[in-house]
Amino acid sequence: MLNQSNQLDLMFQALADPARRMMVNRLCHGPASVSELAGPLTMSLPSVMQHLQVLELSGLVQSQKVGRVRTCTIDREVLSLAEQWISDRRALWGRRLDALGDYLADNPEEPDTIQTETSQGGEQ
Amino acid sequence: MLNQSNQLDLMFQALADPARRMMVNRLCHGPASVSELAGPLTMSLPSVMQHLQVLELSGLVQSQKVGRVRTCTIDREVLSLAEQWISDRRALWGRRLDALGDYLADNPEEPDTIQTETSQGGEQ
Repeated sequence: MLNQSNQLDLMFQALADPARRMMVNRLCHGPASVSELAGPLTMSLPSVMQHLQVLELSGLVQSQKVGRVRTCTIDREVLSLAEQWISDRRALWGRRLDALGDYLADNPEEPDTIQTETSQGGEQ
Repeated sequence: MLNQSNQLDLMFQALADPARRMMVNRLCHGPASVSELAGPLTMSLPSVMQHLQVLELSGLVQSQKVGRVRTCTIDREVLSLAEQWISDRRALWGRRLDALGDYLADNPEEPDTIQTETSQGGEQ
């Protein structure tokens, strides 16, 4: 079992490629065979299989071979993990803006002091 | 200027590392100096600077040096791009589920035919 941090590593890594994002995009319309995934991509089938392997390792995509046809599906819950991580961070940012607004309302005369750094050491 | 696909590549790549996600998380609480970002990370300052460089290249983080202090901030709009890409894909998936529900309602006797593959070629 992957822990959540490892899964986020693999998932964001999997999404960091335009061909893999195209494959995820296609699979969000429904299951597809490998040749259907390869259709719009200008690359060899072995390259498509390599990208598919990265997607499968991340948990974003599962595939099953029946006869000679490998059918791929997206795991929506795994995709949600990535979305959730980002939206949680954006929520933190929103709360920080609220706090900053409160601070500025309470301290209208000294807005320049908010980010003051006092250390005189090396690169901080 | 990066096009949007390149920016998504760099952004998802930037988020595919636990140390960089910790830095993003910290910056969502407000601007921070490099030493503040380094504080909770068990790595050398040069390593922190390398991670910061990846974050800056992706556009997620900006930094400015005043005197000896480099202060880093998050770019919320860039973080939103990544979130938007994922939520758009999830929306596609939701529409696909709706269509599947409609299909099953209209064809209650033959649910097994939905994903049938007919090709007899190689790995499909």
